[in-house]
Order: sequence, then structure tokens, then C-alpha cells
Amino acid sequence: MASVLGPNQYGKAETRLVVVRRGDDAHELIDLNVSVALAGDLADTHLTGDNANVLPTDTQKNTVYAFARQHGVGSVEEFGLLLARHFVDSQPSISRSRVTIESYGWRRLGPHSFAGTGGGVRTAAVSYDGTTAWVVTGVKDLVLLNTTDSEFHGFIRDPLTTLPDTSDRILATAVDAAWRHSEVDGVDWDASFAGAQSALVEAFVTTHSLSLQQTLYAMGRAVIAARPKLAEVRLTLPNRHHFLVDLTRFGLDNPNEVYVAADRPYGLIEGTVLRDDAPPAGLAWSLRGGD
Amino acid sequence: MASVLGPNQYGKAETRLVVVRRGDDAHELIDLNVSVALAGDLADTHLTGDNANVLPTDTQKNTVYAFARQHGVGSVEEFGLLLARHFVDSQPSISRSRVTIESYGWRRLGPHSFAGTGGGVRTAAVSYDGTTAWVVTGVKDLVLLNTTDSEFHGFIRDPLTTLPDTSDRILATAVDAAWRHSEVDGVDWDASFAGAQSALVEAFVTTHSLSLQQTLYAMGRAVIAARPKLAEVRLTLPNRHHFLVDLTRFGLDNPNEVYVAADRPYGLIEGTVLRDDAPPAGLAWSLRGGD
Amino acid sequence: MASVLGPNQYGKAETRLVVVRRGDDAHELIDLNVSVALAGDLADTHLTGDNANVLPTDTQKNTVYAFARQHGVGSVEEFGLLLARHFVDSQPSISRSRVTIESYGWRRLGPHSFAGTGGGVRTAAVSYDGTTAWVVTGVKDLVLLNTTDSEFHGFIRDPLTTLPDTSDRILATAVDAAWRHSEVDGVDWDASFAGAQSALVEAFVTTHSLSLQQTLYAMGRAVIAARPKLAEVRLTLPNRHHFLVDLTRFGLDNPNEVYVAADRPYGLIEGTVLRDDAPPAGLAWSLRGGD
Amino acid sequence: MASVLGPNQYGKAETRLVVVRRGDDAHELIDLNVSVALAGDLADTHLTGDNANVLPTDTQKNTVYAFARQHGVGSVEEFGLLLARHFVDSQPSISRSRVTIESYGWRRLGPHSFAGTGGGVRTAAVSYDGTTAWVVTGVKDLVLLNTTDSEFHGFIRDPLTTLPDTSDRILATAVDAAWRHSEVDGVDWDASFAGAQSALVEAFVTTHSLSLQQTLYAMGRAVIAARPKLAEVRLTLPNRHHFLVDLTRFGLDNPNEVYVAADRPYGLIEGTVLRDDAPPAGLAWSLRGGD
Repeated sequence: MASVLGPNQYGKAETRLVVVRRGDDAHELIDLNVSVALAGDLADTHLTGDNANVLPTDTQKNTVYAFARQHGVGSVEEFGLLLARHFVDSQPSISRSRVTIESYGWRRLGPHSFAGTGGGVRTAAVSYDGTTAWVVTGVKDLVLLNTTDSEFHGFIRDPLTTLPDTSDRILATAVDAAWRHSEVDGVDWDASFAGAQSALVEAFVTTHSLSLQQTLYAMGRAVIAARPKLAEVRLTLPNRHHFLVDLTRFGLDNPNEVYVAADRPYGLIEGTVLRDDAPPAGLAWSLRGGD
Repeated sequence: MASVLGPNQYGKAETRLVVVRRGDDAHELIDLNVSVALAGDLADTHLTGDNANVLPTDTQKNTVYAFARQHGVGSVEEFGLLLARHFVDSQPSISRSRVTIESYGWRRLGPHSFAGTGGGVRTAAVSYDGTTAWVVTGVKDLVLLNTTDSEFHGFIRDPLTTLPDTSDRILATAVDAAWRHSEVDGVDWDASFAGAQSALVEAFVTTHSLSLQQTLYAMGRAVIAARPKLAEVRLTLPNRHHFLVDLTRFGLDNPNEVYVAADRPYGLIEGTVLRDDAPPAGLAWSLRGGD
Repeated sequence: MASVLGPNQYGKAETRLVVVRRGDDAHELIDLNVSVALAGDLADTHLTGDNANVLPTDTQKNTVYAFARQHGVGSVEEFGLLLARHFVDSQPSISRSRVTIESYGWRRLGPHSFAGTGGGVRTAAVSYDGTTAWVVTGVKDLVLLNTTDSEFHGFIRDPLTTLPDTSDRILATAVDAAWRHSEVDGVDWDASFAGAQSALVEAFVTTHSLSLQQTLYAMGRAVIAARPKLAEVRLTLPNRHHFLVDLTRFGLDNPNEVYVAADRPYGLIEGTVLRDDAPPAGLAWSLRGGD
Repeated sequence: MASVLGPNQYGKAETRLVVVRRGDDAHELIDLNVSVALAGDLADTHLTGDNANVLPTDTQKNTVYAFARQHGVGSVEEFGLLLARHFVDSQPSISRSRVTIESYGWRRLGPHSFAGTGGGVRTAAVSYDGTTAWVVTGVKDLVLLNTTDSEFHGFIRDPLTTLPDTSDRILATAVDAAWRHSEVDGVDWDASFAGAQSALVEAFVTTHSLSLQQTLYAMGRAVIAARPKLAEVRLTLPNRHHFLVDLTRFGLDNPNEVYVAADRPYGLIEGTVLRDDAPPAGLAWSLRGGD
């Protein structure tokens, strides 16, 4: 028996890049967290410590900053494509790249003043193998809550089941969703993001929910329906439980009014919605392949 | 020599309370984190473990939930006053109370649908000694950024100073501010909060800053000027450094466009602005006294 | 075109379970965080909200607590196998399960007293498809640092490379590693964990490192060599950079003595080491398959 | 009416300093987080933006690194005294300083290899007014748990009290404690810290607890008794609740064996224990004075 090296990748994670676009009348603010991962002919550095094929992660960081100045930062997807292609196309030893970007929102307060918007981070993940590029756009930490129109009943009752049926509960989640583009050329990335996110939110708001799974599927389906160039949506939805407080001990009723917001444990619902003619995922979801 | 018991307090921290107000047309959502601290004749439990004077923290939690149903939750200041007075007025052994509340913002998406707003948590701290009540309102995690109109120069240069003068930098902070009310009766708490927060933000936006201290003072002064019933503002402003990236190594200029957002270390500026006829702080800032 | 449901799973995450084993002379303390994910015939709940095939996540939580009392908790791997098999074997609609457990360490201070050990959380992930079970054991947040015996040079220099060669640097990481067992029957799980972790740590300590990749491979190889029943090791090693401070500005040298510990960005090195005759991974790494 | 500037301070927070002491046989590792706060004649920078009296926070950071090389880092208290005195003694505009330091523990694995110890961070806070220095040493995030020898009963029962008496519960906390030294000259800081921490832990372990307040007082008293040069101990002890799970619903008993570890809410017990002849606190606890 012997050990063999399996799949591997490396890169610089969480390079914080802030760009100010100084227009005549007002400034624009772009606030990103950029992570790079590269794979390729990297056996030597693992087996012998020979780094001849290694582009330092420090250089990857430099590239993020230099490219931001040289090429500007339009949408995060474009900037990701630029970086992902650069590393593979310029380095013979690098055959695959993946650039993931978080974009933090700011609300304008004045020509050069902004307030952080908190939740709802836009994300992009771009993968490239020297020939094909894949783009996944998404949103995370988007906290949504319905105070009603959520039920849960008719489930399995085994000997350890104590949950009562409910026909009216709070449904709350922190959306972590990502959607795969069928194409990467000629896309209006900002319009695509806005449309997909609107569809997600609208579906959450308007779905009378019998389970968080049903809401998840409705959200994914809405994105697919709204954006013809999207092939697949993956959603991770924690069920942020809000438990009605039992006030009968104090001689009080509680007509779905006073709740405790629980931390842990929480339900975790994960699912995928695909367009029926979706192309294969390739490396869209990771450098190891898109499942 | 012997040991003696000094100042002490106890209570239930971080009771998470969510209230749904079910109007005919739309629901309202109130999302709070309530902490209680009590002081009084508590030597016995410390010295001998005799708990005859101890109202359990579990009961304090129950009280938060029961009062939310019995009395409703209007503004956080009112709810804090209700709770703070209850514990002292109902328990002979308790002579001082302090109730601190965080209120998380939600943006309406529909009649019963909401999105979490992320940053900018409204806070309230109510103290009571059986006779007098003090209220401090505030905001924290309010992230503000100006892309220009910030300078820093003319400072001390000692042998370890290497910082260059700058006449144009990004100024960014996460505001943690609290303001003390002169009175607690007949206040429109929501209007007061809105006015104070607006004044804070407006001052940040419009101050051409020569130091973060100058901005801090301008923010505090603006609150005092805007709200005649506020006596004192305390501000804690981290200086979230954004450093211009040196791109000359790559043959590129960087005309205040590409920055790195740094995590640590950070400047930390703390200051107080008082109305010149401010009444004494009493217990406003803590059960040990308001400095 | 139409939407179709793709891979999906659901469960209760982060059920916090503490078990006290009350021996005559001393107590033992077991402190776990248990997450369950289930997959199977779950289309209906997604498509129509019919929950007839859904075992509530609340029941999954109940099962964790009831089984801890009924069967006791030996090693985390055994407890995970018990739970993973139960959900599939008892529920016709559930065909695959995955139970992941974090185990927090405590150091004994007395017969019934303990101190939390902080870093180095033991993990286990058990998957089951009704026939076969897979077990992955691991450790995360295990912070290791060498003050010397780490070099990095001979790497690619492109136009954006500014990193100098170094022949003596600090090497620090927070190990996140997991290793797949070839078999799940008759394993002494605690001995296996202890042996694997020792091999990991020993390899980190004794490897004169020319790159973090080389250290990663040495760590994986050491685990494979030390434990014949382990088939594969996956490692994620952030490179926690420690930069030598330039003190020449102050007329001081700095002979590898004074460093700044940086937060972000950081290198991120990920790799797999396999036994050359490793069996297929099956569902070991996720319910979607083990790559 | 007008606004006036009240108490204020500023400084550089969280400068991360790692020092390697390279002995012939083995290296030593010192891992600190240093924060500086300064007060003095700082009205101008607040009122007009004139920074002539401001020592930049960047310079404070430089000073931390330069002094680490020039003077070495012995105990954190000594290093804090060195820095605190320097800023006031060298800058006419600065009249008060406060240096707080966190020291992270590492366990030796080899001559130049270490593992992070996780919990139990040693802290020091040094204040100086140009004449007198005060030192407070402490520990935080020290997680302790007793599986028995903890009771809670005999407390107040009001109409909202539902908590049952208990004669056997888990008592768990994360100790945040700090103790004030009567003197700052000729102290063996490391021996003092070791002795105080041992006394704290020993008291937690050996106290049969009727309330967490009783345990708190016992811990403070033990420190005062063990270390004659300590004047005052302040403790903040969250009550990390472990609730016995009701398994009777499943036909199972639960003889104090299976618990849920709760996140929020939690009890929070705060108290002070003083030596009866303790000198005044001065600025020991903050630049605004020691209460």
C-alpha cells in the first residue's frame, strides 16, 4: 500500500477590495470579498516541496487589486470571469480556477455617503477550465419572515413524534441560494441578479406554505420561470423556529401573538430546482465537478 | 483582613421576544432581545446561598413574555420602563433595576411579510431605583462611510510616527451611540429616536472631517441641537481603515480608487457630548451610577 | 420547458446534547452537537405540500435525546451509526441519512468538575443508504504553529509577483481534517481517532516545510500510514499568515522575532490523500455521493 | 443652551503582536492582542479638527511593535506598564493612558511547535495618569462545569414564577474575572496570575453551590485569600443553562443524565469581592475612574 495525492486546490481567500468610482456628480462604492482557488499540475509542491508550478497566493491577491485598477470592476460576475480566465490562461501549470466573490450592499445617503445595508449579500462563483467558463450567482443571509400563511401538518407520527399539527405559524429563514447560468456571454448580470432575487422574494411572500420544502421549491421554480437563461437553483433554507409561548400558566391566552425566537436547533432544508433542459453542470459548483 | 461583598447585580440576559400585532389589513412585527439586571438586598445569596431575596432569572424571562401579552409592546422605551418598574415595585428585596433592549429592524414586503434590515439596531436602556427612572436610547452597528471629505494631518510626529498626512481618505465607521433623555414622561419615543438618528446620520454625511473626533463631536452636537429633551450623547466610533493600495509596483497609479478594507487593528474613538444644562446622570448608564 | 426537483435533503441541525455518566467515583461528561439530514421519497412535500412522507425535524431532535438515554452514547461514530440506521430502517420514505456530530472536549478538574478545552473539536459524519454505512471521522479548529522549519521559495514570478523568497517563516494553521474509514464494523473508534490525530500533529511538528501543500500531504500520508483501516484523508488548511514587522524605519533590526498575525486575506490549501487501494467513497462525503 | 465636550479617549485597538523568543534549545511563543486608549488635552481635535495634540493611532501601533523588539515582552502586565507610561510621559498633551492586553495560550508540542489552547484568555489592563499606575489582571472565556453539587431553591415565588426547586443541577459558566493589584512594583506577575487563576478554579470545583452568586463570591474570596497583594476581584458569570430533557413522553426516565445545553437566554451574575482594606480603585477600571 502507498499514499497517493488526490484532488487538491489552493488559493488566496477573502481579499477585501473596495473600489470608489469617482463620477463628476456622485461617487459609486463597490465593496467585495474575493477568494481564488486554483488547481492543476501541483503534485510537486505536495510531494517534494518544489514550488516551480505554484503561483503564490500573495500574487493572486496582488492581481485582484491590480485588475480592479486596470480593468475596473463592473458586475461581480464579469470581474470573476476576468480573474478566473487570467490565472488559467497565463499559467501553464494551472488548468482550473474558481473565483468566488461576495458583494456587500450600501445604500446611498448623499453624493459620496453611504450606509451599509446589512443582510442579503450578493455572491458570484466563476469556474474556468481553460476552455469553458461557468457562472453561478447567488444571495446569502437574506432574512425573510411571514407572520402567517404557513402551516405544517399531516406528517409522519412515529413513537417519538410529539409535534402538534399547526395551521398557522411564523415562517422565517435566512436564504442561501445560488443559480447557475446556462450561458456566460452577453449576459446583463445586474439585471439577471435583480430579476432572480425578486422572483425568490416574491415566491416566498406569495406562497401559502404547507412546508418549508414547498416554499423552497416555489422559490426555485420562480427563478427558473423568470429568467430563461438560468439552468438550476440550489437553496439552503434554515427553518428559524419561532415558538408560541405557553402563557396559560399565567392565566393568559396567546392568539399567535407572543413568540420566542429560538437559536438552536433549527430545521435545515436543502434542495435543487432544475430547468428540464438544463445543460450539464460541469465545474459550475466546484473545481471537482458540478455533481 | 477579610473579604467583603461589593457592588453586584444579576438577571436574565438575551430573552428573545417576537410579537406579531395582527391588524385587519396588515400585521406588524416586533423583534426584541431583552436583558434584565437587578440589584438590592442580595448579600445572603452570595454569602450563604440563602435565596429568599432572589427572584429567579427564569421568572424574569416569564415576565417579559407575559407582559408582552398583557400590556402589549409599544416603543422599546415604554416596554423597558414597564419591566424596570415592575421588578423594583413588586419585590421588596430589589431596589434597582436595569432593562436593556435591542430592537431588530424589518422592512415590509407585504401585509404579513418582512425582510430583515441587517445593520442599525435600535437600543434602549432603562434604569429605575424605586423613585426615579432614567432612559437611554441608542443605535449600534450602524455602518456609515464617506468616500471623500475626510482629511487627517497636522498630528504629532514622534520618532515612531510614519503615517503620512492625507487630505483625502475614506472615512468609515460602525456607529455605537446612546443618548440620555432629560425626562421620561410624555415622550414620543419613536419620534425621538427617528429625530436623533437622523441628526446623527446627517452630521456624518455633511461634516467635512479633519479627524474622526471632529465627526464624533459634530454627530453628538447635532443630536443635542435637534432634540431639546436629550441631555447627553455617548459615541463609540471604530475607525474602519481603508488603505489605498500601492499599485506603483505594477506600473499603475491609484487616484484614490482601489482600497483594502482592513480588519484589525482599528482606531477607536470614544466621546461624550453634553447639553450645558444637563441634569445629573444618576443611574442612567449603569446600576452602579451614571459617572 | 418546466422546472424539475433535483437532489434534496432535510433535517434538524445543531441539536445540543450533553450526557452525564454518573459512575461511582467520578462522572463522565459528553458534549455533542448533532445534525441530521435525510433524503428519500420527498417529492410530494416539495411539489404539493403533502407531508405524509416527512418525519418532522422535531422528531429527529427527540430521537437524539431519547436514544442517548435508551442506548447511551459511546463514541460519536457509534452514536451516529445508531441514529443514521434508525431513520432509514424505520421510515419507508427515507432512503438515505447523514448524521454529523461535533464533540467538544473537556479536561477533568475533579470527580465531577471539568474545564472546556477550547480548540480541536472532534467530528464524525455517518451516512447510510439502507444497506451500507460510511463513517468519516475528523477534527477541526485544531490550531498548530511552528516558529521555524518553514520555507517558501522557487515559486512562479509573474509581473504581479512581489513576494520575496523566505527560508524561515512562521507556519500556522487551523486544521480541518476528516478521514474515511474502510470499514465500520469492529472499529475501536476512540483508538482510531487518537491515532489519526496524533499522526496529523506529529507530521505537522516534524515536517521541515517547503510549502504548506507539502505539510498537508505529509499530514495525510502520516494518517494513512498509521491507521491501516483508513482509506482517505481530506484536509483544509488555512495559511494563517504571520508577517515579520519592518522595524528598520525605527532603526531596529528584526531577526525573525516580532510578527503581526494577520486576519485576512489568508491562503487556503485543500487536498486529499488516498490509500492506493482505497474502496470507492460512496456516500461517505455527502448524501449526493462521495465524489 | 449649548453642547459641551465631555469625557473622551481614543486609541488603536486590537494590534496583534506575536513574538518568538529564540532560545538555543527551544523557542518561546508570545501571542498578544494589544489595545491602547489615551485621554488628555484633546478638545481641539473634537471642536475644530486641529490635530496638533493627537498622537496618531497608527503611531501607537508602531510603538507596540517597536517596543516589543527594543524592550522584549516579559509578562503582559510589564509590557502594558511600559506602554502606558510611555504615552503619557512622552506626550505633553496626553495625561492618561490605558493599555489592555489579551494573551492567547499555546501548549508546547516540540522545541518550536505549539498548539493553541483555545479557552481561558489571560488579560491585563494597565492605567496611568502620569504619577500612579494601576494594574488589573484577569481571565476570560474560561469555561467551567460541575455535573453536580449545585442546587437552587428557596427563591421568591411570585405569580409568574414557574421554576421548580432543584437539588441537583449542572452548573456551567464562562468565567470573565479581573482582579486589581494593590501595588505595581516588584510583583511576580506570572506567579500572581497562576495563583489567582488556581484559586478561582479551585473555588468553583470545591464549592457546593446553592446559587451561582454563592459560587461567585466563593471564587472572589478565594482569590483575595490566596494573593495578599490583590485588592478587589470583579466577576461576570453567565449561567450556561443545561436543562434536563423530559423523556417521560417516551416512557423513559432521565435520572440527571440527558441534558440540552441552551444558548439563550442565560442568567448573568455579576459581582465584586473586595479586601476590607482595599485602597481606592483610582483609574484601575477605566480612564473615567475606578468607580
